[in-house]
Amino acid sequence: MTNFAKAKAHTNIALIKYWGKRDEQLFLPMNSSLSLTLDAFYTETEVLLDDNLESDQFILNNDIQSLTETKKITDFLNLFRKQAGITTPAKVTSQNFVPTAAGLASSASAFAALGCAMNQVTNLNMDKSTLSTYVRRGSGSATRSLFGGFVEWQMGTCSEDSLATPVDDANWDIGMITVAVNTQKKTVSSRKGMKLTVETSNFYPAWLESAATDLVAIKTAIKQQDFEQVGLITESNGMKMHGTMLGATPPFSYWEPRTLEVLTKVRQLRGQGWQCYFTMDAGPNVKILCRYSDSQKLQKFLQDAFPDNPVIISKVGSGVELLAK
Amino acid sequence: MTNFAKAKAHTNIALIKYWGKRDEQLFLPMNSSLSLTLDAFYTETEVLLDDNLESDQFILNNDIQSLTETKKITDFLNLFRKQAGITTPAKVTSQNFVPTAAGLASSASAFAALGCAMNQVTNLNMDKSTLSTYVRRGSGSATRSLFGGFVEWQMGTCSEDSLATPVDDANWDIGMITVAVNTQKKTVSSRKGMKLTVETSNFYPAWLESAATDLVAIKTAIKQQDFEQVGLITESNGMKMHGTMLGATPPFSYWEPRTLEVLTKVRQLRGQGWQCYFTMDAGPNVKILCRYSDSQKLQKFLQDAFPDNPVIISKVGSGVELLAK
Repeated sequence: MTNFAKAKAHTNIALIKYWGKRDEQLFLPMNSSLSLTLDAFYTETEVLLDDNLESDQFILNNDIQSLTETKKITDFLNLFRKQAGITTPAKVTSQNFVPTAAGLASSASAFAALGCAMNQVTNLNMDKSTLSTYVRRGSGSATRSLFGGFVEWQMGTCSEDSLATPVDDANWDIGMITVAVNTQKKTVSSRKGMKLTVETSNFYPAWLESAATDLVAIKTAIKQQDFEQVGLITESNGMKMHGTMLGATPPFSYWEPRTLEVLTKVRQLRGQGWQCYFTMDAGPNVKILCRYSDSQKLQKFLQDAFPDNPVIISKVGSGVELLAK
Repeated sequence: MTNFAKAKAHTNIALIKYWGKRDEQLFLPMNSSLSLTLDAFYTETEVLLDDNLESDQFILNNDIQSLTETKKITDFLNLFRKQAGITTPAKVTSQNFVPTAAGLASSASAFAALGCAMNQVTNLNMDKSTLSTYVRRGSGSATRSLFGGFVEWQMGTCSEDSLATPVDDANWDIGMITVAVNTQKKTVSSRKGMKLTVETSNFYPAWLESAATDLVAIKTAIKQQDFEQVGLITESNGMKMHGTMLGATPPFSYWEPRTLEVLTKVRQLRGQGWQCYFTMDAGPNVKILCRYSDSQKLQKFLQDAFPDNPVIISKVGSGVELLAK
C-alpha cells in the first residue's frame, strides 16, 4: 500500500502569548492564547506512506535528518497511525520557507503542515479543530497555524478540548513586520524558558490572570476592528510575558541591545502617528503589528535605522492547505 | 539668634529595593528595603539658622536655587522647626560629591546630611533612627543613608516607626562598582515610575510578597557573611523590580542597549569565577556588588569593555557625620 499527500501551513505570531505548559507530555498550556497567521513564512511537507519502507524517513530542507530528529517525527506520526489502526512507515519530506535570516521558529508551520498531510494519508478526515489536538502534540503553537487570520488556542480542560478555533479573518488592513535581531540558536530554548518561569517566577500567577483578561479584551477589540486596542493589548501582553522571566530564579531575558533599540524606534514611529505595536517571543527578534497599507513605508524607516538587520513584511496568512494527494 | 552645623552623608544603593509608596505625603513605603552605604558618593551640607534672614536660602553646588527648589527645602526644614518650636529662617549650603558622570541620585545623601545638620541646630538631639523618620519625608531612600554598611528601612505601621536601623557594618571585603550608562535626566522619574507601577502593574502584589521574602533571606545571608547569597538575592530582587515595570499599563523600562551589554559582561565575569552581582535602580546605570579586594581588577575589565562609560569603585561608606557645629 502507498498513500501520498502534500500540505502547506503558515507560521503564526502570538499576540496573547502561550507561555507555560500544565502537561509536558500532552502539550497542554497553562493559558489560552491568540495569534495572527503570517503569509510570508510557511512550510510545505510531503508524506508518503509506503509498506516497502523499513522505517520512517525524515528529510528537512533536502537534508536527511538524524535518528534523534526522526524519532520525534515518528512519535508524532504514531498519534495518527494509532488512531487509523495502521503501522505503515512514512517518508516525510519537508521544506521550510522561513528565511533563515528571519529568525522565526518554524515548528508551528512544520507540525501544522505535517499534521494536515497525515490527516489525509491516514484517511482520518478530522476537521481542523479536532486535527489541532493532534498537531498540538508536535508543537503547541502549531495548533494555531491550522487557521488563517486571528486564531485562538483554547487551553481547554483536557487533551480533546485544548484546540484551535478561528476568530477573525483579519481582512481589515493588517500586516506584520519582523526585525531580525539575532538568528543564532537561543541560549535558553522556549521549552526551558517557560518551564523555569512556571516553576520559579513570582510573577507567574499574575501572568495567568492577566493573560486571561487580555484575551477577552483583544477578542472584543478584534470584533470591533479597533486596531489601536488590538495593538496596545498585544504590546502589553508581550511585555508581561518578558516580565515573568525577570521574576524567575535565576532571572533571565531574551533581550539584546539591538532589541531595545528597535522597541525605542517603534515607540518613536508611533509618536509620529504611525499605528505600529511591538511584540516579542522567546528570542531577541521584534515583530511589529501594523497596517498593511503602511508596511512598505514602515519597512523603509526600520531598514534605514537598522541597515544590518533583515526587515521583512508579511501580510495575513491563510490556514493550512492540501496541495496534492 | 544664630546657630550653625555642618554634616556629611553618603549615598546608598538598595539591594532589596524600595519601589512604591503607600502614603505619598508621608513617604511611607509599600515594602521594607535594605541597602549598602557607599563611601565614594556623598553630600556636605551647612545649615545656618539666622533671625536676620528674611526667608530660607538654598545654595546647591555654589548655585542659588530657584524658589520652587527652595520651597521643597523649606517644607523639610519646617518639620524640624515645628518640633523645636522655632520659626528661624535658614541658609542651607550644600555640595554634592557625586561625580555627575556617575549618574547616581543624590537625594539620599542630600536629605540625610541636611537632616543631620538640622537635628543639631534645632537642638532636637534625636537618635539616628528617630531622625530617619524626619529625613524620610525629604526622600525615602535618605533614611538609609544615616547609617553605614548594610542598613534596613523598616516599612513600619505609621510615620513614627517607618525608620532605618543598622544591620551590619559590611566590614568583610565588600565593594561596589558603578558603570554609568547614561547620566542625563530620566524620561520617567522614580516617583512617577513607582506610582505607575503601584497603580497598574499586574505583578505588583507578587513583588511585595517576594520583597518581604528576599529581605529575610538577605539578612540571614549577611549575618552568615555568605557573599554569594547576598549577591544572588540582590541580583534577583533588582530584576524583579524591573520586571514589575513590564507588567504596568503602559509597560515601561529604564534599560538601554548598553545596560544589557553590562549585565552580560557581569554574568560573563561571574562565569569566569569572579564574585560580582548586578543591581539597577530607576535608571539605566548598573551597580555591581563585588569583593572590594577584586574591585580594581574588575574595574579594569569593565573599563576595557566599555571605554566610554565611567566605571567607578566605591568601598563601603559610614553613617552620617557631624563635621562642625
